[in-house]
Amino acid sequence: MDIKLKHVYLLLFSGMLFLNGNYLYGKKMNSYKNLMPVPAKMSVSEGCFRLDSSFAVSVNRSYPRLDRAVGRTIQRLAGRTGLFLPQSFFNVQESQDSVNFKISVSDTAKIRFGINETYRLTVTDNQILLTAVTDIGAIRGLETFLQLLDSDEKGYFFPAVQITDAPRFPWRGLLIDACRHFMPPEVIKRNLDGMAAVKMNVLHWHLSEDQGFRVECKTFPKLHQKGSDGLYYTQTQIKEIIRYANDRGIRVIPEFDLPGHATSWLAAYPKLASAPGPYHIERGWGVKDPVFNPASEQTYTFLDAFFKEMSALFNDDYIHIGGDENNGKQWDANPEIQKFMKSKGFKDNHALQNYFNEQLLAILTRYHKKMIGWDEILHENMPKDIVLQSWRGKEAMIKAAQRGYRSLLSNGYYIDLIQPAFVHYLNDPLPEDSPLTAEQKKSILGGEATMWSELVSAENIDSRIWPRTAAIAERFWSPVSVRDVDDMYRRLEILSFHLEELGLSHKKNYEMMLRRLTGGGDITALKTLVDVLEPIKNYTRHRQRKLYSYTPLTRVVDAARPDAAVARNFRKRVAAFLKTGGKNHKMGAELETALTVWKNNYKCLEPIIAASPVLWEIEPMAQNVSRCAEIGLEALKRIRKGEKADAVWLNKSANIIQNAKKPCAQTELMILPAIEALREQVR
Amino acid sequence: MDIKLKHVYLLLFSGMLFLNGNYLYGKKMNSYKNLMPVPAKMSVSEGCFRLDSSFAVSVNRSYPRLDRAVGRTIQRLAGRTGLFLPQSFFNVQESQDSVNFKISVSDTAKIRFGINETYRLTVTDNQILLTAVTDIGAIRGLETFLQLLDSDEKGYFFPAVQITDAPRFPWRGLLIDACRHFMPPEVIKRNLDGMAAVKMNVLHWHLSEDQGFRVECKTFPKLHQKGSDGLYYTQTQIKEIIRYANDRGIRVIPEFDLPGHATSWLAAYPKLASAPGPYHIERGWGVKDPVFNPASEQTYTFLDAFFKEMSALFNDDYIHIGGDENNGKQWDANPEIQKFMKSKGFKDNHALQNYFNEQLLAILTRYHKKMIGWDEILHENMPKDIVLQSWRGKEAMIKAAQRGYRSLLSNGYYIDLIQPAFVHYLNDPLPEDSPLTAEQKKSILGGEATMWSELVSAENIDSRIWPRTAAIAERFWSPVSVRDVDDMYRRLEILSFHLEELGLSHKKNYEMMLRRLTGGGDITALKTLVDVLEPIKNYTRHRQRKLYSYTPLTRVVDAARPDAAVARNFRKRVAAFLKTGGKNHKMGAELETALTVWKNNYKCLEPIIAASPVLWEIEPMAQNVSRCAEIGLEALKRIRKGEKADAVWLNKSANIIQNAKKPCAQTELMILPAIEALREQVR
Repeated sequence: MDIKLKHVYLLLFSGMLFLNGNYLYGKKMNSYKNLMPVPAKMSVSEGCFRLDSSFAVSVNRSYPRLDRAVGRTIQRLAGRTGLFLPQSFFNVQESQDSVNFKISVSDTAKIRFGINETYRLTVTDNQILLTAVTDIGAIRGLETFLQLLDSDEKGYFFPAVQITDAPRFPWRGLLIDACRHFMPPEVIKRNLDGMAAVKMNVLHWHLSEDQGFRVECKTFPKLHQKGSDGLYYTQTQIKEIIRYANDRGIRVIPEFDLPGHATSWLAAYPKLASAPGPYHIERGWGVKDPVFNPASEQTYTFLDAFFKEMSALFNDDYIHIGGDENNGKQWDANPEIQKFMKSKGFKDNHALQNYFNEQLLAILTRYHKKMIGWDEILHENMPKDIVLQSWRGKEAMIKAAQRGYRSLLSNGYYIDLIQPAFVHYLNDPLPEDSPLTAEQKKSILGGEATMWSELVSAENIDSRIWPRTAAIAERFWSPVSVRDVDDMYRRLEILSFHLEELGLSHKKNYEMMLRRLTGGGDITALKTLVDVLEPIKNYTRHRQRKLYSYTPLTRVVDAARPDAAVARNFRKRVAAFLKTGGKNHKMGAELETALTVWKNNYKCLEPIIAASPVLWEIEPMAQNVSRCAEIGLEALKRIRKGEKADAVWLNKSANIIQNAKKPCAQTELMILPAIEALREQVR
Repeated sequence: MDIKLKHVYLLLFSGMLFLNGNYLYGKKMNSYKNLMPVPAKMSVSEGCFRLDSSFAVSVNRSYPRLDRAVGRTIQRLAGRTGLFLPQSFFNVQESQDSVNFKISVSDTAKIRFGINETYRLTVTDNQILLTAVTDIGAIRGLETFLQLLDSDEKGYFFPAVQITDAPRFPWRGLLIDACRHFMPPEVIKRNLDGMAAVKMNVLHWHLSEDQGFRVECKTFPKLHQKGSDGLYYTQTQIKEIIRYANDRGIRVIPEFDLPGHATSWLAAYPKLASAPGPYHIERGWGVKDPVFNPASEQTYTFLDAFFKEMSALFNDDYIHIGGDENNGKQWDANPEIQKFMKSKGFKDNHALQNYFNEQLLAILTRYHKKMIGWDEILHENMPKDIVLQSWRGKEAMIKAAQRGYRSLLSNGYYIDLIQPAFVHYLNDPLPEDSPLTAEQKKSILGGEATMWSELVSAENIDSRIWPRTAAIAERFWSPVSVRDVDDMYRRLEILSFHLEELGLSHKKNYEMMLRRLTGGGDITALKTLVDVLEPIKNYTRHRQRKLYSYTPLTRVVDAARPDAAVARNFRKRVAAFLKTGGKNHKMGAELETALTVWKNNYKCLEPIIAASPVLWEIEPMAQNVSRCAEIGLEALKRIRKGEKADAVWLNKSANIIQNAKKPCAQTELMILPAIEALREQVR
């Protein structure tokens, strides 16, 4: 195969043809078709606003947060275009004579639930106008503005559009678990920038777990001293992250998971547990027994002082108290707790946990905070102003709404399960056929993607969050009718590229990890392999091998990315080819190119694997790819000739495919369905 | 050209053949030959220590700093090998039964000038021993240990060696200018990790400049409030960075540049200037006029209070007072200063500045600090316990030593000049022919690489520092006799790859920047171009176009890297080929491959450039590469045939080469000398 073909292969199946100058299969795409999330309303006119070094921005008056956002916007614009825009240190007092981008805002918003995020953006030949009720609305509009940047043979421009935009749901969150693996402040910050780029507005920060207590606590310093291996956020860092988030219109809600998931607290204060200690920071994964003692007054004295401090540290109105996955074993085994239950008339652990939650609610209320918790905290005795976060199923959310509770959907948005983006994208909190009444629908506040961190490190967490979370962000922001999966994937790839300018490492750390795996060598062949692999889904990795918090997350499975684009595009192209009855010559040739690359790849990869012991585990998979590509090529040849295959080949190929379906080194081969479809065609 | 040839091209000229499993042109290299810096003494034996999951480390007793370093070492080892090493949360109290890596240390060192950094590392079949006088010596040895990791068909191992190592110079520094462009704490931290990897021990932190005052100052808060655009280090961050550096055996020396380079101070406190204000943070580059008033008592009152605070904040014994590039214009123009000079009998500005320095010295001495400054501060009245840093020339350093002053060499280590690594590498503070006496030689403490930041951002600073700084680090650590340039480059590429595991972005941000330049498209062709370009050298960029602190640093010139490896390897291969009289067929074929790729590259690049206006400026260079490659091919063909070229072609090709020598978009084409050499051969 010659270099040109190889190049076409790379372009086609990595989705790059989608991107080059916004070309989609050779057809020029306009930037307004790439917006993500899609705005509520947009109309497009003839004409455009041309960008040059005279570009200048003004705001009707100085709102410091907005001024900073304008400064960042100009810097990103200069960074993309290389233009020497003189306003990078944006100063609202600068001369307004030559201003061609005018921003007008009525008020600055306190960052809290339910603020107005609407904006209107109008681009004409001569100027750009951005108006909003709040500075946060304008900040949302600035992201749309940047996405509109386009170019042609005359240079950079913004197409003439009028956009009137508003979010569908007021609560659009991302949970980051900083406990299973600690995530340094810069990881949180760059992900806040990513969230802002897709108009998300809640960081749900999971801060306590069996595996670590991650907040400096001045009242009970043993919490971070004994519960974190030294890996915790100082209060200064937390304030800085809250400031950083608020600057981008993002609320920060801490989660202190109680009464279960509490080993790290109890490592510091074993007397608060329901069974005698000592306790040590948990190194394994899964649901553990250690749980607070709900029958002891000192538990509540402790938590009162604790939440007093945390309520002052975190500025949002809400605090998340977790409440999930208490297995109740320590409670069942503790005679005093059993006696307590009997005295109170609690018939089960759920009633006891609700008692615990009621005490927590009283504490939070005392410090002017509202309670949010996982759906386990739902109980008839709970007042209606708590918020439930549904992780176990959408039914729980619907039931809660019918009973008058407000809730968020997280079931279906578990990005740590390594599902493809479209699964999350099509999961609508309020689909057209929702059984809820109009009134009940108002109690569905939105949802949250959840990045649990058992199997991610600071090095690869971005590749699990991005770009898939952008599809979820669009679900929460854009109209219910926006649900074209192909178009979502097209825009997702464009957005994914732009996210890099925010420091997100979902692309660049992939190749870095491959370099390390090859021992510093050429990664071409390894990339060809890993491009068509995905980590095995759901929580099967834990079943294959016992994993710990110190297990290295640097193997092929950790480099491999969810929703492998090369494999996805290949599957799509095979389906399209088969739809033509195998008659389209150009499509057939494209597939042949890709399959030939895969078939030959093992030869290139063999010496690389041999030289790098960390790759030995993936050798069978490398062979599988070659063998399956060979099957695909053979089937393709017969399809194009209109022939069927013989029984011997069919039998042999079925065995090879069956064998290739087994996970290898915790990865799975994502081109198999397409290979099977090709084989099926010649049966 | 077929894909295999393209692959060979990539491998050859990007130096990757050097790396793949440590193969050098097909010959297996042993890891002990890759050490950087080269240790003072090493002997190699038969045998090796095999690494497996039973690997465990012990320290003779707990030194918290060393324990943390051991933890990091185990994590890096697990990260490279994928092995599930159970000791990642290293705890010295763990059972010693199965320990096969024993560390023994006599004492913990206070991080200050002159500490003992020696260590001895012995690897045998059954165990590894690391002994050192101080924990810092052991930390140096751990880096050597990691560099020794090797592999063969049985898996990972450490070769049997005995290393006795000690630094040649006690002061091995890197200056990072956080003023011209602010560098966030994580940039400093990852570079501290890089420094530790090559055994450097001083971070010289340039913290005040015309363009920014970067330290939170509690005594004079206007300094950071009015002098930094909000871009400064809080004292908490500074303490954290000092702790981080000290943990890696690195001293942190702040530089507060005085009395010139002071615009940002004077923006906050104009009354301290030698001319009336107001002053504003400087946005341009170059030597500016604003300077402290040395004749005013309030200057010294201010500086006394200032250094009182800073002396407590920074824990090193030394503070750098700058002292460079005061142009004296404000002094000349101020009658009161002139009167003051007359009254004191100062005959020139140098005498006046020395008076200023003497006051500073008294202040620093009061707060138990020693003074270091640029070589301008040398004056007969200065006591001998100051340290001079020579930037203007080695002669200044020699003169200072002859006069009894201690000094550091920075002249020749200005990495912002974009010189190739070998230039710095061969610049020895004390070459064999040094005119200094043995006693005088002791006053040469070492040197510092200087990363001035006019033209680097947080995004590309790593690519200017690394890997070249490792060559300088070796100059300061290894014996004077270690100066084989080819071998240095071979080891540098291996080291450069390992530096990525520390989060350094010198490799990964290169491709990210190229992606942004193509608008998110395929970077293959652009990389082929930029791989053979370097930013123009010295400070010529400033002469080509007026640049400011807000000029985007995202263009091709900013992505292009110093010491372009592909071009360097090509030049080397051409020289080797010509040495064979053009007779070596294999070498000729290799060169043909590379030249063919370059010749054809313009075709691939043309549509990419057309679609991305930010690339338009590089179009002439893309054409130059193709044309010059064509010349190279033609010459090569004739050389192989033993023919000479005709006058018309010689004339035409001379013009094309001459034209290609002109910088384009502030870059220069680094394969030209080799093209010229080929052409010269057929004249």
